Amino acid sequence: MTQVESALQGVITPEMEHVAGQEGINADFVRQGVGVGTIVIPRNRKRCNVSAVGIGAGLRTKVSASIGLYGEQAEVDTEVEKIRAAVAAGTDSIMDLSVSGDIDRMRRVTLATSTTPVGTLPLYQAVAEAAKKYGSSVKMNVDELFEVIERQAADGVDFLALHCGTTMDIVRRAKQEGRIDPLVSYGGSHLIGWMVHNGRENPLYEQYDRVLEIARKYDITVSLADGMRPGCLADSLDGAQVHELVILGELVRRAREAGVQIMVKGPGHVPLNHLKATVVLQRSLCKGAPYFVFGPVVTDIAAGYDHISAAIGGALSAWAGAAFLCYVTASEHLGLPNVEQVREGVVAARIAAHAGDLAKGHPGAADWDLELSKARKLLNWKKQIELAIDPQRAEYMRKTRSEDSSKACAMCGKYCAMDLVSNYLGTAKLSC
Amino acid sequence: MTQVESALQGVITPEMEHVAGQEGINADFVRQGVGVGTIVIPRNRKRCNVSAVGIGAGLRTKVSASIGLYGEQAEVDTEVEKIRAAVAAGTDSIMDLSVSGDIDRMRRVTLATSTTPVGTLPLYQAVAEAAKKYGSSVKMNVDELFEVIERQAADGVDFLALHCGTTMDIVRRAKQEGRIDPLVSYGGSHLIGWMVHNGRENPLYEQYDRVLEIARKYDITVSLADGMRPGCLADSLDGAQVHELVILGELVRRAREAGVQIMVKGPGHVPLNHLKATVVLQRSLCKGAPYFVFGPVVTDIAAGYDHISAAIGGALSAWAGAAFLCYVTASEHLGLPNVEQVREGVVAARIAAHAGDLAKGHPGAADWDLELSKARKLLNWKKQIELAIDPQRAEYMRKTRSEDSSKACAMCGKYCAMDLVSNYLGTAKLSC
Repeated sequence: MTQVESALQGVITPEMEHVAGQEGINADFVRQGVGVGTIVIPRNRKRCNVSAVGIGAGLRTKVSASIGLYGEQAEVDTEVEKIRAAVAAGTDSIMDLSVSGDIDRMRRVTLATSTTPVGTLPLYQAVAEAAKKYGSSVKMNVDELFEVIERQAADGVDFLALHCGTTMDIVRRAKQEGRIDPLVSYGGSHLIGWMVHNGRENPLYEQYDRVLEIARKYDITVSLADGMRPGCLADSLDGAQVHELVILGELVRRAREAGVQIMVKGPGHVPLNHLKATVVLQRSLCKGAPYFVFGPVVTDIAAGYDHISAAIGGALSAWAGAAFLCYVTASEHLGLPNVEQVREGVVAARIAAHAGDLAKGHPGAADWDLELSKARKLLNWKKQIELAIDPQRAEYMRKTRSEDSSKACAMCGKYCAMDLVSNYLGTAKLSC
Repeated sequence: MTQVESALQGVITPEMEHVAGQEGINADFVRQGVGVGTIVIPRNRKRCNVSAVGIGAGLRTKVSASIGLYGEQAEVDTEVEKIRAAVAAGTDSIMDLSVSGDIDRMRRVTLATSTTPVGTLPLYQAVAEAAKKYGSSVKMNVDELFEVIERQAADGVDFLALHCGTTMDIVRRAKQEGRIDPLVSYGGSHLIGWMVHNGRENPLYEQYDRVLEIARKYDITVSLADGMRPGCLADSLDGAQVHELVILGELVRRAREAGVQIMVKGPGHVPLNHLKATVVLQRSLCKGAPYFVFGPVVTDIAAGYDHISAAIGGALSAWAGAAFLCYVTASEHLGLPNVEQVREGVVAARIAAHAGDLAKGHPGAADWDLELSKARKLLNWKKQIELAIDPQRAEYMRKTRSEDSSKACAMCGKYCAMDLVSNYLGTAKLSC
């Protein structure tokens, strides 16, 4: 039985129990969410050493960090360092998005290293292997693509990102519409190149049942990737994007009927005034399937600071109901992140997720802020540092950037203004 | 004549002309805004070497960076470095918030260094001088406070932050309400300490006409500081904050009647779901006077990353109608920023301001993003770097974090998927 089937039969699995414990909520609420598909718990049957994570309605907003081999200089060890940094910084999942090098090894090392759920995008490997075998990715054989999906599934990957909804109809619509930036999805571009060259429909759409069969076998969560995600603000909410989202809604229904957990990947590049509409649209078309947005950045001009731009978009998305935020690092649009940028990317996404949870009144979210605010009032530095989203960074800044506050204040002398005020207000001593 | 009086008499001043040129709008629109008070152009009659900046409705959202001497280790030279970094990073104004050391010298150096408008908070100096003279800030004499205000005005300061609305009534309300974090405004705390100790009303409220007289004399813009700004999310939009905002609305009206330009300072710490209400409330109570918000941060737990938390709050504030964003640096709540944190703080605030401008459809805002997106599609790296919000940072990251993209792609070989797709879509060559 898959998690969905257990849920529908009223069975609370150990994964649901674990998620309920983590979230401090009733296990039956989690079971119901998994049953109707508003919650997913990505966990491959074969996966070991993983702490189950719930993503969806009524749960804390989650974040994901991406690593992977890219280019000739990429090394597995460097990526392992990034995984460790991301997990230490509090990511809820890792995606291995390797496109070159020893992709099998990188994935297996990722699964062994990460204590959080792991996702992959099998098309990248299928494309790389076809390029090696035939001299071009467009020569890829459909069975070979499915062989890679099965291989990655058999390794224990918890969720698979697949461009199942990028159909020829949608590609034609993109052509008619004349986008500013037609395609920015790496997998989507290779897939569409294949479709155009071979004059064939997207095999992941045509043979979607085969996708679901593999997902069922390993109880993998499918993450429907959006091959047509806009690559700039000007293309946001255009016909191609929305048409693909309609198709993704159809694929969500079919996955649920097959007892497969499913979530939907989202943009990318969204102006603030499109954010709520984008999330509301997805929740309606995809019948509440968890929305996994990529940032999104809220301006195109913040290269070098896209983690900040994405935190703005992520916070609004989370507030509007997106359940899962894919981090964006400071080096997005410029190159690959180093370890420090991975860490900052995870923290920025967590700030966004938490700001969203606070805004929608997620139970327990405000307690964290309240506890820290009380410690701040009492000048309890130890507790302030402990409660900071990144205690190590907070402690370092406190050490390097603050004056010695133990010295007597030269401003008030015998009559301390702060004492006067705090006595008057009947509160603890104020700081100056 | 002050700017307001000129505007009301139909006279377009050189400052209004300059602002109109900068914004690419009609000078009479600026004149009308200054006349009714929805736009301010902070510019002291005596100030030299400054490029006039307009703040308010219909203009690009502006940002401000704060520097200043604080503590025994503070040095004028270090702060000058921060001013230069902030101006280079694109700040629209500098506030010198010195509380110790040679405050007169720091201010004069700031005015000489900054090419943007300069603001100060005279209460800090008055408090420091009283502490030195009498052994305690609560012994400060009211005439001495006004002497400092006049001294700073005479130096050429363009806008003065003054806690004119923090009345005894409001302090009593804060006491009744039992805030989590009663007071976080440094100036507000010293002022209230003085009020409680001396059993007297706030002299900046009682003698507000005297404040306006100085402002008129030098044609200074008054920035009404919020002594009661909440210090944590839990205190947002409480009775004390809103009561003070009601008083600030009264003071806006009186300033306008006196021909004085006025803006209103805002919070601080605001959950996302309070942001729009906070801005709408200010715009209603203060009859459209420009709102100068302090970030705001959207969670209390982001110490070490408060520039990111503030960018989230700033973007939403700008979208909702706040005209001016005071930056928050990564070291907020932990210590004082170094030069790099000043630079990052300015850029984060500018990203927020621009995201807000895009969302509200500010004329011209989208052009910047569009131009960069077109350069991105064409793989025109030179132009992408030039158009990035911080070209120096973007170029550095591109150099250090990217693969050599000049090499032939090993993925597609003879049949390049990107060529196939771009030929099909009829666009320029896509990147992979």
